[in-house]
Amino acid sequence: MIWGSNTGVGKTLVSAGIAASVLSDPQPSHVLYVKPVQTGFPRDSDSRFVYLKVSDLLRREGLKLVCMTLYAWNEAVSPHLAVEREGMVVSDSVLRENWRGTVWRLVETAGGIASPGPSGSLQCDLYRPFRLPVVLVGDGRLGGITATISAYESMQLRGYDIVAIVLEDHGLLNEVSLLSNLRNRVPVLALPPVPEDPLDNLIDWFGKSSKVFSSLQEILLSHHTTRIKRLHEMRKKGGDIFWWPFTQHELVTDENVTVIDSRCGENFAIHKVCSNKDMLLPQFDACASWWTQGPDAIMQIELAREMGYSAARFGHVMFPENVYEPSLRCAELLLEGVGQGWASRVFFSDNGSTAVEIALKMAFRKVLHDRGILDSENVDTRGIEIKVLALNGSYHGDTLGAMEAQAPTSYTGFLQQPWYSGKGLFLNPPTVFIFNGIWTLSVPDCLKPDVLEQDDMWFNSYNDLLSKSRDSSTIAKCYFSYISNQLLQFSASNHTTFIGALIIEPVIHGAGGMHMIDPLFQRILVRECRNYKVPVIFDEVFSGFWRLGRESAAELLDCVPDIACFGKLMTGGIIPLAATLATEAVFNAFKGDSKLMALLHGHSYSAHAMGCAAAAKSMQWFKDPSTNINIDKRKNLKELWDFKLVHQISSLPAVKRVVALGTLCAIELHAKGIDLGYASLGASTLVQQLREDGVFMRPLGNVIYLMCGPCTSPLFCNHQLSKVFGRISQIP
Amino acid sequence: MIWGSNTGVGKTLVSAGIAASVLSDPQPSHVLYVKPVQTGFPRDSDSRFVYLKVSDLLRREGLKLVCMTLYAWNEAVSPHLAVEREGMVVSDSVLRENWRGTVWRLVETAGGIASPGPSGSLQCDLYRPFRLPVVLVGDGRLGGITATISAYESMQLRGYDIVAIVLEDHGLLNEVSLLSNLRNRVPVLALPPVPEDPLDNLIDWFGKSSKVFSSLQEILLSHHTTRIKRLHEMRKKGGDIFWWPFTQHELVTDENVTVIDSRCGENFAIHKVCSNKDMLLPQFDACASWWTQGPDAIMQIELAREMGYSAARFGHVMFPENVYEPSLRCAELLLEGVGQGWASRVFFSDNGSTAVEIALKMAFRKVLHDRGILDSENVDTRGIEIKVLALNGSYHGDTLGAMEAQAPTSYTGFLQQPWYSGKGLFLNPPTVFIFNGIWTLSVPDCLKPDVLEQDDMWFNSYNDLLSKSRDSSTIAKCYFSYISNQLLQFSASNHTTFIGALIIEPVIHGAGGMHMIDPLFQRILVRECRNYKVPVIFDEVFSGFWRLGRESAAELLDCVPDIACFGKLMTGGIIPLAATLATEAVFNAFKGDSKLMALLHGHSYSAHAMGCAAAAKSMQWFKDPSTNINIDKRKNLKELWDFKLVHQISSLPAVKRVVALGTLCAIELHAKGIDLGYASLGASTLVQQLREDGVFMRPLGNVIYLMCGPCTSPLFCNHQLSKVFGRISQIP
Repeated sequence: MIWGSNTGVGKTLVSAGIAASVLSDPQPSHVLYVKPVQTGFPRDSDSRFVYLKVSDLLRREGLKLVCMTLYAWNEAVSPHLAVEREGMVVSDSVLRENWRGTVWRLVETAGGIASPGPSGSLQCDLYRPFRLPVVLVGDGRLGGITATISAYESMQLRGYDIVAIVLEDHGLLNEVSLLSNLRNRVPVLALPPVPEDPLDNLIDWFGKSSKVFSSLQEILLSHHTTRIKRLHEMRKKGGDIFWWPFTQHELVTDENVTVIDSRCGENFAIHKVCSNKDMLLPQFDACASWWTQGPDAIMQIELAREMGYSAARFGHVMFPENVYEPSLRCAELLLEGVGQGWASRVFFSDNGSTAVEIALKMAFRKVLHDRGILDSENVDTRGIEIKVLALNGSYHGDTLGAMEAQAPTSYTGFLQQPWYSGKGLFLNPPTVFIFNGIWTLSVPDCLKPDVLEQDDMWFNSYNDLLSKSRDSSTIAKCYFSYISNQLLQFSASNHTTFIGALIIEPVIHGAGGMHMIDPLFQRILVRECRNYKVPVIFDEVFSGFWRLGRESAAELLDCVPDIACFGKLMTGGIIPLAATLATEAVFNAFKGDSKLMALLHGHSYSAHAMGCAAAAKSMQWFKDPSTNINIDKRKNLKELWDFKLVHQISSLPAVKRVVALGTLCAIELHAKGIDLGYASLGASTLVQQLREDGVFMRPLGNVIYLMCGPCTSPLFCNHQLSKVFGRISQIP
Repeated sequence: MIWGSNTGVGKTLVSAGIAASVLSDPQPSHVLYVKPVQTGFPRDSDSRFVYLKVSDLLRREGLKLVCMTLYAWNEAVSPHLAVEREGMVVSDSVLRENWRGTVWRLVETAGGIASPGPSGSLQCDLYRPFRLPVVLVGDGRLGGITATISAYESMQLRGYDIVAIVLEDHGLLNEVSLLSNLRNRVPVLALPPVPEDPLDNLIDWFGKSSKVFSSLQEILLSHHTTRIKRLHEMRKKGGDIFWWPFTQHELVTDENVTVIDSRCGENFAIHKVCSNKDMLLPQFDACASWWTQGPDAIMQIELAREMGYSAARFGHVMFPENVYEPSLRCAELLLEGVGQGWASRVFFSDNGSTAVEIALKMAFRKVLHDRGILDSENVDTRGIEIKVLALNGSYHGDTLGAMEAQAPTSYTGFLQQPWYSGKGLFLNPPTVFIFNGIWTLSVPDCLKPDVLEQDDMWFNSYNDLLSKSRDSSTIAKCYFSYISNQLLQFSASNHTTFIGALIIEPVIHGAGGMHMIDPLFQRILVRECRNYKVPVIFDEVFSGFWRLGRESAAELLDCVPDIACFGKLMTGGIIPLAATLATEAVFNAFKGDSKLMALLHGHSYSAHAMGCAAAAKSMQWFKDPSTNINIDKRKNLKELWDFKLVHQISSLPAVKRVVALGTLCAIELHAKGIDLGYASLGASTLVQQLREDGVFMRPLGNVIYLMCGPCTSPLFCNHQLSKVFGRISQIP
């Protein structure tokens, strides 16, 4: 793709030069020249110029050259202005659809790299999904160094690879300064001065330039060859030297490995070889890259700019006893947002697992403080044991402390973690899901009431599940008696052991699949823990920041914690950062006149500037209706998954249950004789089929799920969900 | 600071306009206009133009305006060319020294934002240490949108804040497109068209423009006021809502809090109020922001560009079963570098603590595998307990699993982590340090030989400590017998408990200060563990990537591990990322036909693209002599701390011992009656004094340390160390 560091720098001469060079090979390849957008037409026609000039130069029969102009306007102004003045609106997506190439495809953009296209979007944004290798036509005039460097940087800031810079020599040796300032990262070629006489036919000039153009051809070819070679070897090399997390390498064949060339918003561009042709195909990242992803293509570039700025302004600076803008802004936004109404302190760390370990340390101290164990010097702590109250099937991370807060599963066996002991009292929670189009409650036997009435079981919407009227229902009483009995039994049989924290999350997920807990159960749990003065931790690493349609689980469950953990989507899914929020009462339990009373935990990159800047940007972006079209007037997220389609899916014979809420649509399939456990290959055939359809999934046992971002358009969501519906319908 | 998105866009008109607007206030402030670099002089003199034009416009006595040109050349070309052609070399640092301002200071740059200055450095890099608020003069012509947006982005990519864009209206409504494409992040003002007649005195034009200039003045003033207000409130706000790691908030007063406006290479720019004036002062980040920092100012901007590119190309994409360029490149470089000769697999995580937990899981599996505990279905694992072999005083992170591998300290008490039990056999290691100018060995009583000869005790250099001849010395025999006795005793008294891993690091650091272990002791430890088939883990989170003068501790200790952990400086200190490297034998212990045999550990941002890209860039940058001037011909890091000065310091009465190696210079002070423990305030007076000198330190108990980056110039290091010498000399 031929780009200009400015207008009038000679893009078309470069296009013609490359075309002529390729076509003068003894056995030339076909060349396609495309000018997607042309203004000043038909007076100016770059494709006519290229065709005529190459014909003139080569004087050959059967020239293997096709030159096309796709859209053109009369006035020689920026395309967005031409559209305004002359009409003929062309949308970005149409412009992206209309050109597919042959062997050598030269696409010449209009004006400079960040000149607007017909829709007003900048061309460097508009053509980003293709991410074609860039020939940047630099500027050899006075002021050309700055123009060329800035253009280069703007292209880099959109993830393009610049293969070569070529510029007209104006006697200022701009190419020397460019090469040195770009640290030889990219070749810089100088073309001889172009004759100023407009009547010059340029035949001489092309002659003098032919060496430069053949070098350029060489560079482009070699870049392409190297790139393709690398794409081919990556699959195997990755398998040879990576140690992938949660992966049995013996079960991964080369063909199962996905080579990701780039991502643009919700889509990966993956490398595939189809009938011997190398392709880069878009594939929807339906697992949201382990539930981290949020940005669409626009937000991704905004975040990239923010990342460049933060790295340049701060790099990383250390946090304790220091303040710097991104950390403060991020903390303010956390407290105004997910922490609103309860939290007053922010503790930063790197990932969900560490955020949970910190939360546990906070809760334990709070409980020791409340029981007076800190104050009295005579208390012998040796016999005391602290446990957590948690849910069976839940998961809070992979470090030992976070693992201790989960019930035994295949993650926690002796072979996995010989130090695991499971320091908890684990309850069996009731779950909710959509089946046959209706939200349905499933209650485990241990807390089943004698009579379950229909009103207790079935709900029209998730909002009905949250209704206050359920607080006095039969099922509420069952929940209460189950919980209080468990707590009573526990304290009766343990004299020096007590519960130091309740840890819950709206959706449990892990070895056992993915289940949404009845919010009523959780509200009652929280209330009981308050009665017992047990600190309450919300693990919001998964649920935080609109994942489930609300900014936080506190909103979703209509009750607040003492401590909550955030991560994943907090940074817009671009960079690791986690935060543990706490009330002032929790914070106060660490006050004292000695450093030994402080929370002696920290990570070197605590509150790193890039992470905090990304989080601050994302938190604001997601909830602002001017940047996120999915935010409705009541500041909630619109339904992203088509109601009807979800219900249809939940009625398919192969489907056991569905949970569709916020950005998540999880579908559990019937086991049908295959092993249900984590060790199984689960829904792997279906997953392979959907990858063919352009949907990249990772199943959790028999659960497949689609996860979009908070700003993904419902149209896009629907398109993806329809593909899933199509495939599942075919399962008998 | 007035910057141009191109040459010839009217920077000087804007400067004059702002100056006139300020000076036409009823009680105007003083205005200083500076043109640091001028070419085409004296024919063109922007400062003369500004002075004359403002005088013409205001026609006032006692104009409070000073206009200066600092350096000027005759020919109207780029300054770097003018220097080449006319002489008068001006270095970047001289250019940065020669202008300090008054109330309103307008600094107008030459050409466009990335035009070279006299030395050839780009002006946007050259003036970066000041990070003055930017007025960007945009381009209203055809092609002006792209030029302005690119210039804006290049400034952002260097951490500047752009306060306003102002451009000349050429009837193309560029300001509308700019405002929309910049999403209203910055005001865009349009000036009326400038008369084309060169004889026009512009009085009319300035009259028509006065409203725009007074808006611009307003915007600049309001930006400044808001910025200063924020800087003032940050100190307190941070203390109110942050929960700083490892910090007793009760002991932190507002005055102790440092407000960091930005960093540039090794220096912070910190905010201070000195005699009622707001200042931003450079301060050397001597604690390397918790040992993470490496970049100088040039490398920081390179990394920033890389971060923007990676975020734009990949955002984050998920890792398991996938391959993408930065992850593969990073893994390749790790195996070619710190893993050379032993490692074959790379497992990514987020921080040192998780890297250690992963290493432990790897080691334990390996040991179970080697003992056949995996293979036999009849082995009852319930009674089996696995412990680590580690050093007293060492520290491997704050998550529970990493904490279990350290001996009890003030970090591990019941109040800090009630779940800690200390699952290890902990040895007392001998240490080495410089005292009175000589490397000295200190051996704990438990392994002291009967006779310690001088050859065993004193060494001329750290290299002598590594000498192979020590392997057969008396002291080597003592080490061996201490270690083997400890192992024998342990196995004799434990029937179902065995050692599952040795974990060591070259420098132990934590609650007990900072101590360098005798490398001979560690070599013997490793050898013994090999005999017992105990997997060896090197914790290189601190030592990796040239911290101690070699790329890895394996080089430093002259023996290799089975597993090693890396973090901190790996990414050039810009972003969190960690890696655990392992041999193929360790990897093979996880192979099997079931997913349950795999290492079921992972973090959502595993191998995130930005982290891997930063690491790949940094690893190459640090060891390439063309980018790092400190790399000598034998591919080692030069001595960065002046030998003589270090020896002088080690002979001062207040100094107990010194360790100077690679980028580290740690100085332990005599306790002199103050509490030695972690809870003490340690060397706090000295630290306060050094902050006045522009050195930002954080003591570890009684240890103060300076840590530079692998590419920091020895001159800079010396300058800092001299300040420290000066202050310590004054301690009686």
